[in-house]
Amino acid sequence: MATVNENFLRLQAGYLFPEIGKRKRAFAQAHPEAKIISMGIGDVTQPIAPAVIEAMHRAVDEMGKKETFHGYDDEGIGYVFLREAISKNDYKSRGVNIETDEIFISDGAKSDTANIQELFGPDNTIAVADPVYPVYVDTNVMAGRTGPIAGQGTYLKIVYMPATSENNFVPEPPNEKADMIYLCFPNNPTGAVATKEQLKKWVDYARENRSVLLFDAAYEAYISEREIPHSIYEIAGAKDVAIEFRSFSKTAGFTGVRCAFTVVPKELRAYTRAGQSVALNPLWNRRTCTKFNGVSYITQAGAAATYTSEGSKQVREVIDLYMNNAKVIREKLGSLGYKVYGGVNAPYIWLKTPEGLGSWEFFDLLLTKANVVTTPGVGFGPAGEGYVRLTAFGELENVKEALDRIARI
Amino acid sequence: MATVNENFLRLQAGYLFPEIGKRKRAFAQAHPEAKIISMGIGDVTQPIAPAVIEAMHRAVDEMGKKETFHGYDDEGIGYVFLREAISKNDYKSRGVNIETDEIFISDGAKSDTANIQELFGPDNTIAVADPVYPVYVDTNVMAGRTGPIAGQGTYLKIVYMPATSENNFVPEPPNEKADMIYLCFPNNPTGAVATKEQLKKWVDYARENRSVLLFDAAYEAYISEREIPHSIYEIAGAKDVAIEFRSFSKTAGFTGVRCAFTVVPKELRAYTRAGQSVALNPLWNRRTCTKFNGVSYITQAGAAATYTSEGSKQVREVIDLYMNNAKVIREKLGSLGYKVYGGVNAPYIWLKTPEGLGSWEFFDLLLTKANVVTTPGVGFGPAGEGYVRLTAFGELENVKEALDRIARI
Repeated sequence: MATVNENFLRLQAGYLFPEIGKRKRAFAQAHPEAKIISMGIGDVTQPIAPAVIEAMHRAVDEMGKKETFHGYDDEGIGYVFLREAISKNDYKSRGVNIETDEIFISDGAKSDTANIQELFGPDNTIAVADPVYPVYVDTNVMAGRTGPIAGQGTYLKIVYMPATSENNFVPEPPNEKADMIYLCFPNNPTGAVATKEQLKKWVDYARENRSVLLFDAAYEAYISEREIPHSIYEIAGAKDVAIEFRSFSKTAGFTGVRCAFTVVPKELRAYTRAGQSVALNPLWNRRTCTKFNGVSYITQAGAAATYTSEGSKQVREVIDLYMNNAKVIREKLGSLGYKVYGGVNAPYIWLKTPEGLGSWEFFDLLLTKANVVTTPGVGFGPAGEGYVRLTAFGELENVKEALDRIARI
Repeated sequence: MATVNENFLRLQAGYLFPEIGKRKRAFAQAHPEAKIISMGIGDVTQPIAPAVIEAMHRAVDEMGKKETFHGYDDEGIGYVFLREAISKNDYKSRGVNIETDEIFISDGAKSDTANIQELFGPDNTIAVADPVYPVYVDTNVMAGRTGPIAGQGTYLKIVYMPATSENNFVPEPPNEKADMIYLCFPNNPTGAVATKEQLKKWVDYARENRSVLLFDAAYEAYISEREIPHSIYEIAGAKDVAIEFRSFSKTAGFTGVRCAFTVVPKELRAYTRAGQSVALNPLWNRRTCTKFNGVSYITQAGAAATYTSEGSKQVREVIDLYMNNAKVIREKLGSLGYKVYGGVNAPYIWLKTPEGLGSWEFFDLLLTKANVVTTPGVGFGPAGEGYVRLTAFGELENVKEALDRIARI
């Protein structure tokens, strides 16, 4: 008899975004005249940059000719041309030495942050911020690394670290021991960033406790303040204890093209239960070569074009456009008396609901009264209750229209 | 202390194909004058069909314009236009009713056959053919579903089913109980196919034992004999017990473009340890939406073009070209006195080594004396010892040249 992975049955019903989609569709069906503006799902809205489009057209043509056709990517971890561009532009340019064989190209940071836990044993304690991107938690639930659901939709055996206005949404390392620590800066959903000093505390904690930091930097391109680190590896000693995730999704509008990468430094180690150290770079390589067959050549050619002088300029213009939306949202909501956080180094604005309204209550209010879709903060964890997340993706005129409607309620 | 997944340490050193690549590169470096012909790794060589190239160009252009830009694929399991084309052309055309919500688009059959085991509990017994595509075994080793390595590189707690010339490389259901059964027809590496009668025995076995068949049909497009089933679902009752994997890699030359799909019927069930039945379709949906973010829109547009009248004709011509290579290989090697199998309904020819040579011995002989790269059969399992796999991918003139060289040794 084939038995099912019963850990799946512990998952809470419905991933957050499908539930939002369902409520949105139900409202749209009941009110076909309503012009709904989405500030909910963190999806980009601007088209792909011309230099990237051009590179993808060239790559498509190459695939159509025998002499330039590309089949399997030999190494399975991504083309050298892309890994070299990443090493040079994302790391060496900031004084961080990351070699090409420490970089693994993938189809998305969601896949990578979901799959990385496979390298670790079943008994590790995971720590996550609260609120948190649900993928970190759900994938550990599926793997049986958590206990059952306790109160407020949280799981036993997870260390939740509240990110609140009191700590500026940057939690301190916990007093208890945690082995696998998920950090995300710039943060989804709060838009908070961590300073070098704050990240150093985490690196120190991990080094002391032989923990591994799983550092999700998918939004690093949105950092506008000069002193904020873009990579965990800007902290001395981090290569011994941290894996970093990056993505082209929000950097270059690749949510529909699918490309990301993960850095697993050669120094990084975890341990057998007997205490023997094991390098994680060859393990991730083995995992990648066994369970994955690489990313489309066309996609990788497009991703590489984001590093050309033309491509990087075009990509930057789109980010600036989104960050101008963020500025407009922050300022307008602030002037209306709302408490807003984030939106300076991240495309997310974290909005305190007024008058003690619950996240879903305020979500429904904005949907029904202003026809604006947001993301309920509580969907990211109990400490997100009383907040909604707004995204800066979208057209400025829609953003302004949405804000005007919010102002009227 | 972060502990490592110690199951990874049970994996045997080196995935097969990197080892082949290493030997090939070492030989090429020592003999730069040698013109090596690869008949080893099962990678396609013909360019992508013009209708597909055209569709991908159109899709790239769409991504470059705001009005037609595609971000995240809303449902996360693939665009409806592609799932409808699959449902109609791959299934309904053969009298099999597979609905669009039973089809999940992915980046590759390797990923899917690797990830599917996550739906199942840790105590299931897996059964695989011997020889077998290594991914089925390695991913279960990583998940801890097997025991340690025993003799001949096999793992304890796996039911190995020898596929030999005595059973025409189609094993019968085992006498012992197996819960998760990997079947691959047309077979990689032997090129064998199963008849409806043979598959019916497997469906009957699975229904009796409440097992799940994991049916890898990545090579179905190469079937030339009319009576051979293309899908496990052509067998009555299979939707209750089988998952099917398909790919555009070998069908349409997508090894470098990356697109595949998995069918999980709504009827299919596994069981809790307490015996309660659980539908696997929503579990795979949940797994997909949590750990994956869909396939490039450009790729999916290209895949859909393989179903147009023009696209399907062009794709068929390439398959015919490869299958002509297979015919030439079979006939020539047969006339040289070699025992050859496969190559009629699959792009693989399974060649018995002469004079009792071991697989790697014969591999090295062909590499050094004929400068032809093959795949050692033993790399797929102990019953593959004494065989090498040849692929029909490549240029006819290279195939002929390789055969001439083999004839001379």
